[in-house]
Amino acid sequence: MPIPDMHEELTLLDRYWRAANYLSVGQIYLMDNPLLRQPLAPRHIKPRLLGHWGTTPGLNFIYAHLNRVIRQRDVDMLYVCGPGHGGPGMVANSWLEGTYSEIYPDVSDDATGMQRLFKQFSFPGGIPSHAAPETPGSINEGGELGYSLSHAFGAVFDHPQLIAACVIGDGEAETGPLAASWHGIKFLNPQRDGVVLPILHLNGYKIANPTLLGRSSDDDLRQLFSGYGYEPLFVCGDRPEEMHPRMAQALDTALDKIAHYQQQARSGAADAAIPRWPMIILRSPKGWTGPKTVDGKKVEDFWRAHQVPVAACREDEAHRHILETWLRSYQPETLFDDTGRLRAELRALAPQGDKRMSASPYANGGRLRRALNTPDISEFALAVTAPGSQQGEATKQFGYYLSALFTRNRDNFRLFGPDETASNRLSPVFDVTSRTWMAETRDDDEQLARDGRVMEILSEHQCQGWLEGYLLTGRHGLFNCYEAFIHIVDSMFNQHAKWLKVSRKLPWRQPISSLNYLLSSHVWRQDHNGYSHQDPGFIDHVANKKADIVRIYLPPDANTLLWTGDHCLRTWDRINVIVAGKQPSPQWLDMASARAHCEAGMGIWHWASSEGEPDVVMACAGDVPTMETLAAVDILRTWLPALRIRVVNVVDLLALQPQAQHPHGKSDAEFDALFTHDKPVIFAFHGYPSLIHRLTYARRNHASFHVHGFNEEGTTTTPFDMTVLNELDRYHLAQSAIRHTPGLAERHPALLEDLQQRIAEHHRYVREYGEDVPEVRDWKWPSRA
Amino acid sequence: MPIPDMHEELTLLDRYWRAANYLSVGQIYLMDNPLLRQPLAPRHIKPRLLGHWGTTPGLNFIYAHLNRVIRQRDVDMLYVCGPGHGGPGMVANSWLEGTYSEIYPDVSDDATGMQRLFKQFSFPGGIPSHAAPETPGSINEGGELGYSLSHAFGAVFDHPQLIAACVIGDGEAETGPLAASWHGIKFLNPQRDGVVLPILHLNGYKIANPTLLGRSSDDDLRQLFSGYGYEPLFVCGDRPEEMHPRMAQALDTALDKIAHYQQQARSGAADAAIPRWPMIILRSPKGWTGPKTVDGKKVEDFWRAHQVPVAACREDEAHRHILETWLRSYQPETLFDDTGRLRAELRALAPQGDKRMSASPYANGGRLRRALNTPDISEFALAVTAPGSQQGEATKQFGYYLSALFTRNRDNFRLFGPDETASNRLSPVFDVTSRTWMAETRDDDEQLARDGRVMEILSEHQCQGWLEGYLLTGRHGLFNCYEAFIHIVDSMFNQHAKWLKVSRKLPWRQPISSLNYLLSSHVWRQDHNGYSHQDPGFIDHVANKKADIVRIYLPPDANTLLWTGDHCLRTWDRINVIVAGKQPSPQWLDMASARAHCEAGMGIWHWASSEGEPDVVMACAGDVPTMETLAAVDILRTWLPALRIRVVNVVDLLALQPQAQHPHGKSDAEFDALFTHDKPVIFAFHGYPSLIHRLTYARRNHASFHVHGFNEEGTTTTPFDMTVLNELDRYHLAQSAIRHTPGLAERHPALLEDLQQRIAEHHRYVREYGEDVPEVRDWKWPSRA
Repeated sequence: MPIPDMHEELTLLDRYWRAANYLSVGQIYLMDNPLLRQPLAPRHIKPRLLGHWGTTPGLNFIYAHLNRVIRQRDVDMLYVCGPGHGGPGMVANSWLEGTYSEIYPDVSDDATGMQRLFKQFSFPGGIPSHAAPETPGSINEGGELGYSLSHAFGAVFDHPQLIAACVIGDGEAETGPLAASWHGIKFLNPQRDGVVLPILHLNGYKIANPTLLGRSSDDDLRQLFSGYGYEPLFVCGDRPEEMHPRMAQALDTALDKIAHYQQQARSGAADAAIPRWPMIILRSPKGWTGPKTVDGKKVEDFWRAHQVPVAACREDEAHRHILETWLRSYQPETLFDDTGRLRAELRALAPQGDKRMSASPYANGGRLRRALNTPDISEFALAVTAPGSQQGEATKQFGYYLSALFTRNRDNFRLFGPDETASNRLSPVFDVTSRTWMAETRDDDEQLARDGRVMEILSEHQCQGWLEGYLLTGRHGLFNCYEAFIHIVDSMFNQHAKWLKVSRKLPWRQPISSLNYLLSSHVWRQDHNGYSHQDPGFIDHVANKKADIVRIYLPPDANTLLWTGDHCLRTWDRINVIVAGKQPSPQWLDMASARAHCEAGMGIWHWASSEGEPDVVMACAGDVPTMETLAAVDILRTWLPALRIRVVNVVDLLALQPQAQHPHGKSDAEFDALFTHDKPVIFAFHGYPSLIHRLTYARRNHASFHVHGFNEEGTTTTPFDMTVLNELDRYHLAQSAIRHTPGLAERHPALLEDLQQRIAEHHRYVREYGEDVPEVRDWKWPSRA
Repeated sequence: MPIPDMHEELTLLDRYWRAANYLSVGQIYLMDNPLLRQPLAPRHIKPRLLGHWGTTPGLNFIYAHLNRVIRQRDVDMLYVCGPGHGGPGMVANSWLEGTYSEIYPDVSDDATGMQRLFKQFSFPGGIPSHAAPETPGSINEGGELGYSLSHAFGAVFDHPQLIAACVIGDGEAETGPLAASWHGIKFLNPQRDGVVLPILHLNGYKIANPTLLGRSSDDDLRQLFSGYGYEPLFVCGDRPEEMHPRMAQALDTALDKIAHYQQQARSGAADAAIPRWPMIILRSPKGWTGPKTVDGKKVEDFWRAHQVPVAACREDEAHRHILETWLRSYQPETLFDDTGRLRAELRALAPQGDKRMSASPYANGGRLRRALNTPDISEFALAVTAPGSQQGEATKQFGYYLSALFTRNRDNFRLFGPDETASNRLSPVFDVTSRTWMAETRDDDEQLARDGRVMEILSEHQCQGWLEGYLLTGRHGLFNCYEAFIHIVDSMFNQHAKWLKVSRKLPWRQPISSLNYLLSSHVWRQDHNGYSHQDPGFIDHVANKKADIVRIYLPPDANTLLWTGDHCLRTWDRINVIVAGKQPSPQWLDMASARAHCEAGMGIWHWASSEGEPDVVMACAGDVPTMETLAAVDILRTWLPALRIRVVNVVDLLALQPQAQHPHGKSDAEFDALFTHDKPVIFAFHGYPSLIHRLTYARRNHASFHVHGFNEEGTTTTPFDMTVLNELDRYHLAQSAIRHTPGLAERHPALLEDLQQRIAEHHRYVREYGEDVPEVRDWKWPSRA
């Protein structure tokens, strides 16, 4: 497209850009006099100046140009704003498009609204300084950098009409998660997925430093991104009159190429290689169009433009003058009419209705969300004739459920995992689908397909980012991961939890599906991989978050996992963490019992307990602790038939918390009915013992809780030895019950001694033969019929 | 170098490789008959087969070739083993070099030792399956992937003689942290630093999938790594007789180039561009030299070779036959002599003494560690004439200390941070040094220098990885970071803590300097950046680790930070977390008092307390909670002069734990002497309240603890409003004291009401004016002289 043709259009577009820039500066600085109809006075300026100018003009520039192609081509476009601290720009654009005033009528589209728009920004009781749930059109909390590109890929999977324009700052581009997310291109199927258009925005500086990519040569950048598989298009400069046509041309080229590749793929004409999708590398000055210098120091095109370029505008007249000159340079009188509304010829530049990026249903995913079509879990239940009568593999059984889910939900459910789906024994899913794989395949490859729906990349960050993007745009998913390595995404979890906490309170944000984790290959069954793979601490991290957002489940066997998994997948606006085993292990509950037990969250296992008030409570949470608890009970019943033991199993961990602290929390009466007022409670726990203390410290009987769990003792050894090293095994649990039940230790010293000998025998045997003692390997509940 | 010349050498080298491969397979499978002098019988085979074969032959191939260049050029080389699950290879090589038997004499260098070497691997009571602290020559826990390359860069900073050969698996290469770590090259100064030689080992497969880079074309790879700034050298194939000369030639080329660039830089001949450092891309089959197929399924050069290629060797004769054929294919009788020792002509291939990579002092950093030369902290102390009499900026003051540290330790201390050193107000360091910056500079740049010692990249992963590598090779450092985003490295922290826990128990591993975190821009002072930046949970995560490894400090002002920071920097084998503020805030303790207070870990602030037994204890930990506590005490003293208040400040958080749980833990008597037996304790805490409960639940007076802390309530607002939103402010604390002190609420309802009104007034004021009420802004302790 020859440049002259666009002249008039781009002149208008430049004005639109100036309007967005004006509104951005206004938000950072002004609390009154929004249209500068009076000379700027100290009282017009906010007492605290908070916000990030540096990235904002670039974001606005991109936004205005994307509007152009949306209108021209009528495409569905989403704006993923990597430099989320450029919040003023995102807010400005949604106000210009009218969306802001539709959602927040108080902030009307006129001068009154503009004043409110300005004042509320970064102001107590107002809106955050970064792109956030409150920001129309946003799908990410912009405060933490690194996840924009994986969010963008997640958004376009199974959304064939969608183009996610993803702006990546050169700061963000230095982070690890972002660096790996360029590979997302290799998982994009042009037949069924939309496309991501990465726009790498090099403004050259971070908070106080140049950026690595900003100081890379064009040639290095071209090679780098070609190597990742893209075709980079450069748009470089600082003179707006030159930059507009360059950007317009680059976007036209990019959109043409996207249309071409999609048309090719969808018409069946091409199937071979992954297209060399276009990307744009935009070099423009940081703080573009802002003050060139302040107090003799360079600001525009330098890191000093990062936040508030000119700071003392209330106190210092010279500073205030710089600000006023800067604001007036956008010529607000030519942009807004007498009422303060954007002029009609500029309003016409924005797309209409849902095509507006700030109003896109893709950015308010609940609007697109269709409920999952879930199968009946009983179909996949293990027939447990009596507790402990058979072995089963929990995650494999759940894999059958997931395969049915795939069959019933062909375009809005995906399973994510870092190359561990098979290892986690969810392999039944491969009966009905494959892994997504767009790169080269070879004859021997198995379970790879262009239309596969299992997303595997050896990056927990990508799995999490993709899933977040997928959920935020209205779909469903599950992330399966080794328990220890889910800590890799602790910080991403934080940000998603924060997103949910805020978005739940915004009536215009429709609920999205919950983020579900299935953590397997857990601490007790990483005996083969050793200490580096042994960490149950993610649930501690999760428990810190707002109670209405998080749930933690520890199903002890297959049927309880089926109930739990199915339940979690049908919830919304939560983060559910399920920890479940993959190894063959005893099955305790038939489906009906599993259902009742899980619905209650915790309960007495009467079939393993004595009648009436107990002498000691043996509590357990987690599959291995449950097995060890029952084995301990088995020993105690044999030796001490008169001892009244109660077995309590906990599935829904946060139900231990007081009712006032968590919606699932048991009342004190319910809690005491399970755990008694004063009897010793020997609690075998999956994770770190302190988590149980932290959840129960306010309970009446807490001083009687003796918790066994992971004490950071581990190595490559046998599964049972892992429990012995941490004193979570049956022998230590039985000893603990004897020691803490009044009078018992004195009356039965021989039993304590016998247990100690069994521990010693275990140590001897396992070190000689490399496997567990037959007594443990062959144990079955109950050892005597 | 023409290939034929190397024929004889490479024939020997091939035998050396075969010896390493033989020992690797032996470790995975055998518990007896190590030299196969009898036909292989079931009893020779371990009951559980654990270990990773797939990557191992490649690791051994690289190792043998590196040995060649070490001998030839007498260079100092470190082997950083990214695919750490290839533990058998690392162990095999250290045994071949003699190091293993020197360190573990029980595993002698003969047939008896070989049998023990085999049996102990992945065996209870033996050694882990992955490269680990127990593995001579290793500096990383090989279980979690993603950090090898940043470790390698950390190792070579300020080690000009060192070449870190870093093997990166194509699985690991998919992770985010690894993807970003290629940029490390831009921080390498050839004049003062060593060099990293990355060897990207593409064996094509992960656990159950092809790899992304393995399926990339050579052309894409060349572009990708050229774009990162390297010169890639390809070594591709599967026939050993072809691969040996190719690898030898590539290594010769690489080492020639390295020597050339270093010589140029060190002679002052070149100063301009960053050299295009060489890297090697090695494509070789996964499970190379192992079984081609098992049960008709492809194994070699496929993902099935990942762990144990042939599994049922005890039970299944056919499988056992495959194993025996495989083992004998290495011709052990030609590799080991009658006593089982490596034959002399092969022993001669290994380097000698400390040049052996398994014996390198760089991989046992404590051997190289020189104590820091620390200045006297009093030099930097703020002169506090009376508690609360003046304002100060804690981190800035500590910055002066750090600048002195830089001056005194010019080659073994560095400061790391993700572009936040200035933001965290440590800027005084820039008076004496700059940021390391090797890329292009421009006239306006500030504080960038090729010999700068502040390491900034916008990647917490790189900061952590570099620092770990720097410490593990015997130096000192500090990581400064925004508190919220340190969660990004939760999992790296885990692995380092695990490393320390194990390495401390190995007498041959010398202590290394502690890993020190200074977390600033903390939750209470991220009012300007908003909710995404507000998270104090890292210390919860840290508190889960073994007590002898971790320390958490919350200094309330500048002088306490000086003591704490200085103390931490002088410790070893620990992870110290310091959380401290950067904003101007009241100073409480002069240097002598600060020293005494910090040494005690916690104590009564008598100058703020009533004499004798209190009615209520006002406890605090953290700078903002301390200020709010004193402000609350100030209010209470004004209204209720007869109320006996005790102020207890806690600096050393884990001293709250029982003595049995933490070495710093106070005895119950000491604890009770501070917190009383039965008086209400209003605890204002920096982090999540549950952490205090978790640390103190076993204390006598725990039921009287009322903890105020971060409740996940935050947004962009004022600093004081942050505390009000979370009920950590002076008014809520004063209310809490009144409510929980028996009889007080009944006698003083007006005071409660007044406090409620002040809260309401705060809300009104802050939302109207955007700053805190003057009562708060102007408050000073004590409000009445």
